[in-house]
Amino acid sequence: MNQTPEELFAMVKDAAGRLRGVAHVTPVMTSRTLNERLNAEVFLKCENFQRIGAFKFRGAYNAMSRLSAEERARGVLTFSSGNHAQAVALTGRLLGIRTAVVMPCDAPVIKREATQAYGATVISYDPQERSREEIARELQQRQGFTLIPPYDHIDVVAGQGTAALELGEQTGRLDMLLAPCGGGGLLSGCAIAAKGMNPGCTVIGVEPELADDATRSFYSKTLQTVKNPPTIADGTRTPCLGKITFPLVLGFVDAMKTVSEEAIQEAVRVLFFRLKIVVEPSGVLGLAALLSGRAPAKGRVGVILSGGNIDGPTMQRILTG
Amino acid sequence: MNQTPEELFAMVKDAAGRLRGVAHVTPVMTSRTLNERLNAEVFLKCENFQRIGAFKFRGAYNAMSRLSAEERARGVLTFSSGNHAQAVALTGRLLGIRTAVVMPCDAPVIKREATQAYGATVISYDPQERSREEIARELQQRQGFTLIPPYDHIDVVAGQGTAALELGEQTGRLDMLLAPCGGGGLLSGCAIAAKGMNPGCTVIGVEPELADDATRSFYSKTLQTVKNPPTIADGTRTPCLGKITFPLVLGFVDAMKTVSEEAIQEAVRVLFFRLKIVVEPSGVLGLAALLSGRAPAKGRVGVILSGGNIDGPTMQRILTG
Repeated sequence: MNQTPEELFAMVKDAAGRLRGVAHVTPVMTSRTLNERLNAEVFLKCENFQRIGAFKFRGAYNAMSRLSAEERARGVLTFSSGNHAQAVALTGRLLGIRTAVVMPCDAPVIKREATQAYGATVISYDPQERSREEIARELQQRQGFTLIPPYDHIDVVAGQGTAALELGEQTGRLDMLLAPCGGGGLLSGCAIAAKGMNPGCTVIGVEPELADDATRSFYSKTLQTVKNPPTIADGTRTPCLGKITFPLVLGFVDAMKTVSEEAIQEAVRVLFFRLKIVVEPSGVLGLAALLSGRAPAKGRVGVILSGGNIDGPTMQRILTG
Repeated sequence: MNQTPEELFAMVKDAAGRLRGVAHVTPVMTSRTLNERLNAEVFLKCENFQRIGAFKFRGAYNAMSRLSAEERARGVLTFSSGNHAQAVALTGRLLGIRTAVVMPCDAPVIKREATQAYGATVISYDPQERSREEIARELQQRQGFTLIPPYDHIDVVAGQGTAALELGEQTGRLDMLLAPCGGGGLLSGCAIAAKGMNPGCTVIGVEPELADDATRSFYSKTLQTVKNPPTIADGTRTPCLGKITFPLVLGFVDAMKTVSEEAIQEAVRVLFFRLKIVVEPSGVLGLAALLSGRAPAKGRVGVILSGGNIDGPTMQRILTG
């Protein structure tokens, strides 16, 4: 890390200023039933209600709004088949920046269409033949696009951290904060913010057992990877933490926990039937860790529900239980 | 009606006072997509987030909290296999009143268990042999219970009206208000409140086409009935408006509209996929009328989303579309 914790926290606060009036201030939900069951005071930060249905808008907008006029004129490029693609596309529309998204040719039609609907150009590639990084690099060189990656970028991290900053402003002092971990952008940003507000807040990252690369990396202090893990939490299928996010996770996170696929599905059902909200499997990891006892709740507990973009068949499968 | 519109509006405001700190002040949600699609400003009143998952808590609590000490000591009785049963049961627990709920023996196990979990005694009967009114009357006479019916009671009506009163306080002046109509308790209460706040607000009640008794009653000015209508909106399967609610609907509502089963399901899906919230079929009727064009949106439009108690199989069927 080139920055001190104070400098990193200041970057999150600056990001919050840029997002003011642009990102939604998402609500915090509570539930008597949940509090009784967990014997704690639980605050659910509903990023499923964020623009594009996930926290990813925060990071993409923060990073893209920092580009120079010249960079903006050349356009922005990313690779993602998920929520980050839509976040970049929507930000491009809002800021008048041309955007291109590199997506595998077998990405779900619904995701491709949603990205195009926000005005991005989708560039397909065959993942058997080439890597997305290779394609992206080529486009960067040939056409001068600026690459805004899904998580391994300090302005993306700072943007995602505003979710925890906002939560803290809404709830006051928290004893514990749980966030899902895929590439580590949300987790490290939120950890920076939570520790900045209250150094005594215990920050816990949560992964699926099937995609436990960050947990292994965290405890071995050496970067570990996972390949196409078959978890239902599709937002955490990233192979590993990034060059920037790994040291941030090591520096700011107190513990990593994993949860079973069944615990993930049970948390989706609890939010559906008791809270009446739609949260995607990757979004419920923090709550799954609490409900399954992997991370025992204590005191005032913040949980980032990171997104709500779930397709019909997946929800049907989960409701069948 | 024995009361003037001013007296009725005062009853709603009194009910709001009783509910303060007991019922949730439910959030109002908005959506850019929805506003663009409808070319209006739409405010969704999320009673799916109310205690017991539906507006019914408002009416039951208001009515039961007005009982005398002697009446409270004798206990409260109701007949319902739906949200009102749970509302009475929870209120009984909060106020220390013994409650009994008459429920057909073929009511879903999940509803019976939910009602019992709140502490009510469930009394089963065979609907082939006897009517619920007959059973209820017998229990009233034998054991001195006070009957709090699901909708045909002025204190229940006043309690339900607090949903619209609260919405108006949250949004400011509304040009239009839409509410679902089953027995007419919610609709008439909300109409009283909406007209009390702004006599120029157009109030529209919405029913399924398959359960259009209130619409026919409204336009013929003669009470019409429907028997076990096979609509997916189970909260509106009531046979007809009540002795109290029919004249209130005639006096305070501007129009009644009906919507198809497909329009109901489409509205559930829009709320699921775009707004990320879980609303039961009976709860989406107002939005279904807007989206299907049966009630064209104009100006600032309030919509009561009345509840979120939907079972897994029903949601699965709707998501299949």
